[in-house]
Amino acid sequence: MMNRKPKAAVIGASGYTGQELVRLLARHPSLELAWVTSEQEQGASVGGTGLRYVEAEGVPLMEAALVFSCLPSGASAEWSRAARSAGAKVVDLSGDLRTPGSGAAYGVPELWREEIRCQGLVANPGCYPTGILLTVAPLVEAGLLDGKRPLVVDAASGVTGAGRSARRDLLFGEVSEDYRAYGVGNEHRHVPEIRVGLRRLAGADTPFVFTPHLLPIRRGILETFYLPVADGVEAGDVRAAAAARYAEEPTVEVYAEGLPALRDVVSRPVATMGFTDVRGVDGLVLGVTAFDNLLKGAASQALQNANLMCGFPELEGVPL
Amino acid sequence: MMNRKPKAAVIGASGYTGQELVRLLARHPSLELAWVTSEQEQGASVGGTGLRYVEAEGVPLMEAALVFSCLPSGASAEWSRAARSAGAKVVDLSGDLRTPGSGAAYGVPELWREEIRCQGLVANPGCYPTGILLTVAPLVEAGLLDGKRPLVVDAASGVTGAGRSARRDLLFGEVSEDYRAYGVGNEHRHVPEIRVGLRRLAGADTPFVFTPHLLPIRRGILETFYLPVADGVEAGDVRAAAAARYAEEPTVEVYAEGLPALRDVVSRPVATMGFTDVRGVDGLVLGVTAFDNLLKGAASQALQNANLMCGFPELEGVPL
Amino acid sequence: MMNRKPKAAVIGASGYTGQELVRLLARHPSLELAWVTSEQEQGASVGGTGLRYVEAEGVPLMEAALVFSCLPSGASAEWSRAARSAGAKVVDLSGDLRTPGSGAAYGVPELWREEIRCQGLVANPGCYPTGILLTVAPLVEAGLLDGKRPLVVDAASGVTGAGRSARRDLLFGEVSEDYRAYGVGNEHRHVPEIRVGLRRLAGADTPFVFTPHLLPIRRGILETFYLPVADGVEAGDVRAAAAARYAEEPTVEVYAEGLPALRDVVSRPVATMGFTDVRGVDGLVLGVTAFDNLLKGAASQALQNANLMCGFPELEGVPL
Amino acid sequence: MMNRKPKAAVIGASGYTGQELVRLLARHPSLELAWVTSEQEQGASVGGTGLRYVEAEGVPLMEAALVFSCLPSGASAEWSRAARSAGAKVVDLSGDLRTPGSGAAYGVPELWREEIRCQGLVANPGCYPTGILLTVAPLVEAGLLDGKRPLVVDAASGVTGAGRSARRDLLFGEVSEDYRAYGVGNEHRHVPEIRVGLRRLAGADTPFVFTPHLLPIRRGILETFYLPVADGVEAGDVRAAAAARYAEEPTVEVYAEGLPALRDVVSRPVATMGFTDVRGVDGLVLGVTAFDNLLKGAASQALQNANLMCGFPELEGVPL
Repeated sequence: MMNRKPKAAVIGASGYTGQELVRLLARHPSLELAWVTSEQEQGASVGGTGLRYVEAEGVPLMEAALVFSCLPSGASAEWSRAARSAGAKVVDLSGDLRTPGSGAAYGVPELWREEIRCQGLVANPGCYPTGILLTVAPLVEAGLLDGKRPLVVDAASGVTGAGRSARRDLLFGEVSEDYRAYGVGNEHRHVPEIRVGLRRLAGADTPFVFTPHLLPIRRGILETFYLPVADGVEAGDVRAAAAARYAEEPTVEVYAEGLPALRDVVSRPVATMGFTDVRGVDGLVLGVTAFDNLLKGAASQALQNANLMCGFPELEGVPL
Repeated sequence: MMNRKPKAAVIGASGYTGQELVRLLARHPSLELAWVTSEQEQGASVGGTGLRYVEAEGVPLMEAALVFSCLPSGASAEWSRAARSAGAKVVDLSGDLRTPGSGAAYGVPELWREEIRCQGLVANPGCYPTGILLTVAPLVEAGLLDGKRPLVVDAASGVTGAGRSARRDLLFGEVSEDYRAYGVGNEHRHVPEIRVGLRRLAGADTPFVFTPHLLPIRRGILETFYLPVADGVEAGDVRAAAAARYAEEPTVEVYAEGLPALRDVVSRPVATMGFTDVRGVDGLVLGVTAFDNLLKGAASQALQNANLMCGFPELEGVPL
Repeated sequence: MMNRKPKAAVIGASGYTGQELVRLLARHPSLELAWVTSEQEQGASVGGTGLRYVEAEGVPLMEAALVFSCLPSGASAEWSRAARSAGAKVVDLSGDLRTPGSGAAYGVPELWREEIRCQGLVANPGCYPTGILLTVAPLVEAGLLDGKRPLVVDAASGVTGAGRSARRDLLFGEVSEDYRAYGVGNEHRHVPEIRVGLRRLAGADTPFVFTPHLLPIRRGILETFYLPVADGVEAGDVRAAAAARYAEEPTVEVYAEGLPALRDVVSRPVATMGFTDVRGVDGLVLGVTAFDNLLKGAASQALQNANLMCGFPELEGVPL
Repeated sequence: MMNRKPKAAVIGASGYTGQELVRLLARHPSLELAWVTSEQEQGASVGGTGLRYVEAEGVPLMEAALVFSCLPSGASAEWSRAARSAGAKVVDLSGDLRTPGSGAAYGVPELWREEIRCQGLVANPGCYPTGILLTVAPLVEAGLLDGKRPLVVDAASGVTGAGRSARRDLLFGEVSEDYRAYGVGNEHRHVPEIRVGLRRLAGADTPFVFTPHLLPIRRGILETFYLPVADGVEAGDVRAAAAARYAEEPTVEVYAEGLPALRDVVSRPVATMGFTDVRGVDGLVLGVTAFDNLLKGAASQALQNANLMCGFPELEGVPL
């Protein structure tokens, strides 16, 4: 009986992440996507569903078992807390609740699954931090990282990572045939989240440099890691540690050889990574991690989190 | 003596057309670019010049010999008329003054040079109409066009033709990997201008269908013409007529064989055209015309007009 | 029991069409994808399957129930005939067997379903003709088309339609920021196929002009139609005829209002179409049809055909 | 008298670099571009000149004062030596002569001008090494670099850097919407050239990691530097050293604030660079250097070298 399925709502769904999440939820076997909100597109039909966009205030929170907030950072926390108070389980995809003390669990399922399982409020991680934490975790756990020298992460993202607001700097005429760094010098808004995540992994501060760049591409993030490793550690050790760490995780792929490209991951709900040595340089292993910023960097990860929170199989509805 | 050169102003210069015009004027041997205005970028330096953006109200119109208005349609006419009243010669690049009765000459120099020469106020043509009128003129003049059957113009433009305002539908994430028609069914804002121009050429209404499309490209317009021709007329006749018509016009190139591609014209201040027969179909010649929407479709054409108005050689400062 | 499923082979599968077909077949519930061949990538693993590329000669044709040939035009017919002789049902995706007298049925299921159903050898249509025939059929059947005046089809395709061979003119450095017509004047290799198809629909020759353009886009075809219609016919009539004609066809969508864009169809196995009147012009209706050249223009249409040939539900494995 | 100008030849001119060089030479005030060769395009006209492509063997080397070889690496050295033997001054743009012992001077004019001035054979540097050496030189000269810790250079280049040969991996369908690292682990063919150049600057080996990536862009290189600096050195020190070092060099721009983007440099014959500190990390300064791979990374640098070799003003014909 269809109407016995728990009902889900997506708040702020006309952006790129919201659209992707709606697409996934529309096919979820154990959830009923019941409400999709958008301030700008109220009344328009929601592609691929029988629904129309409503205003956020029109969602009967008491009836919702699960609420995803795709509202912009700054506007999301209040809404998520209200939904939680009304009894819904909440996945907040903004940056509002990703810091300690927010009362929300931090949702990287492959790293902190058990804490997510028993939570009613989960902060879905930022796209860049997702890739960084998944890549660094096996090194830390296996004692391969030299935590004294700075970890360098040089990253590049497609434009959907910057949202769908009308901004001059995101016009086709500006982005096409351009490439530039932004938020340089550890000024990007994801830096605090990365810092907290690394500290949690390592039990201590890990120095790092994070430099994101904007690609003239729609989807995908590729992060190039310059990993300071302990004496004698080589790429093979890192690769083995990562492969072992994620052997049972269908959402993380570790390349036995070679390095991933964006082409390998766009439209797939996985993070892929590879490692190699650098000729002539010791104490450093090069890693490349790639994933779809709208899936493993946002919507499919949110679904993994929601499944854990609701007691469904974690990968239900995740299009592997 | 530098300061004896007539002074020019560009109003509303932070858009794509304005930027291009500033680039050209900065190298014009007989004009001094003295003021560049932008509401959004006041105080910022204007690349490639020693100037800074000022507010439009700050331009001493009495001192300006020549004013180019790149303001949006709707906001431009009033400004242009004020500048004209203050004594400046004015080229208005908006759509505001392109219709009969506006008091402005219509500035396609290759077609109506003499009228431009004696004018103080010239409406710079729209990008699409420029290509259409230049292509159709030789056929009409040589009596090759069958003006009873509709002329079909299927056009495609890069995004800079749509301006540099922050609009969601012009975001890289929307335009990239997309292609779509817009303003279909003769609803595009250039249709009245095309209608008037064709009537002026032919001395009677010429039925036409105009369908523009948006390309995931920065610059360039390519127009594919399905030309209804009089009995027995072939592509060779049309080509010969066009070649003869523009033999003395360095800004129009007629291909002796083959058809132009966007690649041939981007960054060049010319319109290029070619014609071919269609196997199995009589009474119709296929034409393709390509040009850079920001140059022959806007800034370099404005410069041709300004030169004519000021008595300079028409191609001075035009980077042929 | 898995191994009781009929076995399928894809010959020449490393191109864009072959890859797409492999992706679909790997999930087909009633077929076992058993062999995938590629001259260039022999031995490499076929992504998303447990298979490796083999050489075409290594496929035991006697064991194959179904063979898809994605070989280049010119090289495909001989191979397809050999496979057919060996007893396999064959879908040939090249241009080799699309003409009358080839002994193959012409596979547009929505138009000629019954002839495909009883065939062992089917020619999968070209991408451009697919869109043209699907668009024109309802007009002809409803008597709305004026078959004396030429039908104009102005089309634009992404680069995957041109194949994956190493050609200088298809390099990123050549295609990016360019747009050009090719095969103009009814010289494109699809013209004979279009001519035959239209004759079959109309029972007589229908004059047409077909002008394809190359888009700096990966996937998708958009065709703009200038449809000569009988006296008094308007867009509403055409829309109604098309909607009625395809009411039971999930693979063809007729817009009740507006026109499709590429964005609407990429990665979907459907053709979408819309129609509109042209202000000021009678006797002509404007239509736009869009579809994914690799799906409805190739691989998903091949799957529809194969399903019909094998007696499976036509849309089995088609990702609607 | 036109024919008294020294005559120049470009060998292998149909690639992207050759085309750019021809464009520059066609406007050079003191040289006559007399021969342009291409194996593939013999007989075709060379755009923007009155010339036609000839075969390389047809160039009368005895008459050429200056020869530019744009032949592929491997095929170029022999040809360059032959031209030199015939008496011409030679700029070799391939990788063949960039190593010590080749008998050629290494042509970064801003660093080693005097050695170039008295040479008859100059190896034009690779695009990536040009940016690296120009960026690192001021740090080394000012004693700011810590040469013990590895310098990390994470670079991204547009596709024209990979040449214009018909390669499957450079097709639009492959490159578009992709981003990937290549030649990782110090395996790129420019690594030996970088190593030699750094050793020459520093007087000792400087450890480095160089990771290039391929951008879906036509032109431009952006290199992000993670510079290990001596105790207490900050970005301001590096910026000041670079600004002082290049104060008299119009071809190198040091940003007083901010970092360059590709958009700032495409089509300009300069290298631009900026530096910033990294919050929370000592001993490391972040730098970004951007330039047009076909100009400062190839053709305009070749022109600087040629001018020096011929005794012309170094920037003659360089479109600053």
